[in-house]
Amino acid sequence: MIVKEEEMANLLESNGAVEKEINGVFEADEDTYDGVKVQINELMDSNHFVTMLRASISQWRKQGKRGVWIKLPIEHANLVNAAVKQGFWYHHAEPTYLMLVYWIPEIPHIIPANASHRIGIGALVMNDNGEVLVVQERNGAFKGTEVWKMPTGVVDEGEDICDAAVREVQEETGIKAEFLELLAFRQSHKSFFGKSDLFFVCMLKPLSYKIQKQDSEIKGAQWMHMEEYAAQPFVKKHEMFNKIAEICLAKKKNKYNGFSKELMTSAFSAKKSYLYFNQ
Amino acid sequence: MIVKEEEMANLLESNGAVEKEINGVFEADEDTYDGVKVQINELMDSNHFVTMLRASISQWRKQGKRGVWIKLPIEHANLVNAAVKQGFWYHHAEPTYLMLVYWIPEIPHIIPANASHRIGIGALVMNDNGEVLVVQERNGAFKGTEVWKMPTGVVDEGEDICDAAVREVQEETGIKAEFLELLAFRQSHKSFFGKSDLFFVCMLKPLSYKIQKQDSEIKGAQWMHMEEYAAQPFVKKHEMFNKIAEICLAKKKNKYNGFSKELMTSAFSAKKSYLYFNQ
Repeated sequence: MIVKEEEMANLLESNGAVEKEINGVFEADEDTYDGVKVQINELMDSNHFVTMLRASISQWRKQGKRGVWIKLPIEHANLVNAAVKQGFWYHHAEPTYLMLVYWIPEIPHIIPANASHRIGIGALVMNDNGEVLVVQERNGAFKGTEVWKMPTGVVDEGEDICDAAVREVQEETGIKAEFLELLAFRQSHKSFFGKSDLFFVCMLKPLSYKIQKQDSEIKGAQWMHMEEYAAQPFVKKHEMFNKIAEICLAKKKNKYNGFSKELMTSAFSAKKSYLYFNQ
Repeated sequence: MIVKEEEMANLLESNGAVEKEINGVFEADEDTYDGVKVQINELMDSNHFVTMLRASISQWRKQGKRGVWIKLPIEHANLVNAAVKQGFWYHHAEPTYLMLVYWIPEIPHIIPANASHRIGIGALVMNDNGEVLVVQERNGAFKGTEVWKMPTGVVDEGEDICDAAVREVQEETGIKAEFLELLAFRQSHKSFFGKSDLFFVCMLKPLSYKIQKQDSEIKGAQWMHMEEYAAQPFVKKHEMFNKIAEICLAKKKNKYNGFSKELMTSAFSAKKSYLYFNQ
């Protein structure tokens, strides 16, 4: 793997490239991998697009360029087919745009892979009485099981795991809480659209007690003794749930340590990131 | 968040839906969220596609369907623009296809988010002499720093974190190793294409000693005393690197415990997943 995780920070994040035409060639931003990036911002006829694209690739080839990226806003979907016919393929898409890519050299491409995981959280909110905050969901996989489960959810794009746990708890139950520790996580594959997911069990300290549940998603919410939670037949029956309940019980008795978080500066930028480790 | 992480396993993973025409309407697979999925497998004229799509949506609306998914192989890029004009938007794309989505009801959509993270690993391979396996990279962010760093890489789609660490070590240095423990991880945002990443520091036990480095990516590889690794100016200077080196030094002295892995069965399928926790 040549394109390293640490060095992606600078890749393709500039937003300066536009489809300005200079002598019939697209103006492009350069990346740190001898690649070029074009962003289409204005409506274009697909024949004109192809003419310019061919001339541009010819020039980039002479310049020794390798990867060619075209960021195509959904408003310019009329150009997708033309780009594909010129040998571009899909790299990724988001609701508002499609990213196409092309590789000029004869050697195999080293185009970095697309995002591969979604991140989920489960929140163990335990109060001073040894009770945990549990919910029953109206829909989804748990519907009809009658099982009381910890609040769960998906980490939003750009959101920290610790913040997602706090947010989901408040959204589902109205309880304010603060992140204490990460107790465990599991990785699973082919979870949605062939992608994988990581699910983090977070321990939170409640800052309020009175539950105000979100009615549209949550059928019920209550405080429940940890032992009662762990003793539910559904939890006992399923290996993964049972193990997580065991960890939570051990945590209640102060016989378990997970990972804490600490905000640190990245080596390659001024960005701050949380490092999770055993303190 | 209504569509839960656990229940995505069954969503859209069937491959039975085809564009079979029944009375001018697409034959579609149903999902567990009152959604339908169409996969285009054969070449189609875009006018005919639009006619069928309109008739199909009309029928699905009467049936109370909500999300409509069209999986469009890149060979059928000629239909992208037509679908967008009918109100579809991009959900995600992979090199071989584009997934388009449409929402029928008048209420706000609950279409699940696309994958948001890439997963990276760093491998601390420590031998019985307290030496760690380090490399210098030819390219990328570390180029020119002369820093000796642990082998790093990106987790392939569908790959377990523990396996990725073992694979990257072997690819870069020829050293066979086995996963022992997860020491720490950090989450950072806007790392590539606006997506986030999680970077896991894994402790590995070497099963061989003789280094055979991969020349194209790796400039140098050697065994180095952990103290010497930690004392490098680059490591000392950068907060995150320094903290990770401290954790590794503590691990060498058996004064640190990370998360171990255990293979477990999921509650909702026969799938096996690793749970990482403090054993």
